[in-house]
Amino acid sequence: MQPIFDCSLFRGITPEEIKEMFALTNTSIKTCHKNAIIKFQGDEYADLLIILNGVISAEIQSPDGKRIIIETLRTSSVLASAVLFASDNTLPVTITADTDVKIISLSRKTIIQFCRGNEKFLLNYLQDTGNKVIFLAEKIRLFKFKSINQKIAGYLLNLSGKQGTDSVKITYSREQLADLFGIARPSLSRSFSELYNLGILGRDGKIIHILDRIRLKEIILNEDT
Amino acid sequence: MQPIFDCSLFRGITPEEIKEMFALTNTSIKTCHKNAIIKFQGDEYADLLIILNGVISAEIQSPDGKRIIIETLRTSSVLASAVLFASDNTLPVTITADTDVKIISLSRKTIIQFCRGNEKFLLNYLQDTGNKVIFLAEKIRLFKFKSINQKIAGYLLNLSGKQGTDSVKITYSREQLADLFGIARPSLSRSFSELYNLGILGRDGKIIHILDRIRLKEIILNEDT
Repeated sequence: MQPIFDCSLFRGITPEEIKEMFALTNTSIKTCHKNAIIKFQGDEYADLLIILNGVISAEIQSPDGKRIIIETLRTSSVLASAVLFASDNTLPVTITADTDVKIISLSRKTIIQFCRGNEKFLLNYLQDTGNKVIFLAEKIRLFKFKSINQKIAGYLLNLSGKQGTDSVKITYSREQLADLFGIARPSLSRSFSELYNLGILGRDGKIIHILDRIRLKEIILNEDT
Repeated sequence: MQPIFDCSLFRGITPEEIKEMFALTNTSIKTCHKNAIIKFQGDEYADLLIILNGVISAEIQSPDGKRIIIETLRTSSVLASAVLFASDNTLPVTITADTDVKIISLSRKTIIQFCRGNEKFLLNYLQDTGNKVIFLAEKIRLFKFKSINQKIAGYLLNLSGKQGTDSVKITYSREQLADLFGIARPSLSRSFSELYNLGILGRDGKIIHILDRIRLKEIILNEDT
């Protein structure tokens, strides 16, 4: 049960409570071999999937048939919590096993039962889907910036305004940031390194320091690569 | 109470049940005059707003200070149901009154109470936020298409595949479609008219008929305006 205890949907709920929740419900556990396709883009998504063990990728196909990985998900991650209850509950991505994978399926009925029976679960579920909306809305906002440096500048200045400080806390992983900016991870790292070397940004674990706000703003206005 | 009865979050719930739900809770009703700013972009969104009467706009400012209207909402519409429970629950848009407006505020606590007490409300709420995610994900997918005709073609061909028919049902309003494509409404109408006149598409109320699938596909491949 450890991967379930560590899953964000069960945050703040004790292992005992979680065991009780699961004792009252039917679940099914599925094993997929490495490289298997777990769900195709366009498949109906009628049961919530949580990874009990392994790594999966969510990917789309570009018009020329190339695989574009949108997200990599690991043990305890939840898949597409928002899609589950949408009017059009077809998956916008293909789900592939990157390693051998163990997955648990929870029916919509079970999720509804958990939401009604446990306030923390309900809040976690609403937070998870809400965060997805915020992420996508920010991704759309950042489309207007052309270069990666502009995207970084636009993102950090906005966050700095919200957090009211020049030492900005980043809650996204590198991978999520790359997805947010619509770029590959190595490109993201290169751009950050450049901004550190120029003395415009500094870094301290999950904190990014805006060392030179004027030059950061200039990037947005001037850069045209 | 009629605007509440007509609100999507209360779909399928009888007026009697709704009255009971509201009898147990504190709500506050606010009136705003035409052109008043109801909420600023970046404000905390801690209470769910439902429009009881009037029209409001959700807008963002472009970097050069221009107002860009993202959405126009009318009586019975719900504002930002997903943002309410996000970790970062600050509004990504500014909310302005287009007419004199009457708005009801429901606290997060009230929404949680409604979700736990009424299964239909819970399902409606999860559907509302899920639909938002699907809308934004589709908007991002359509960014790769450059011209409006390409966006229309990409959107309709995808929907046709999902619905398994050449007579595609559009669930979005004209306004939502324009938002989805990131364009102004008159441009959307012009492009649709062009495609009707060319005999590529036909229309029947909410149904769009794909009359010439081959030419529709060609638009995606060839057009470069």
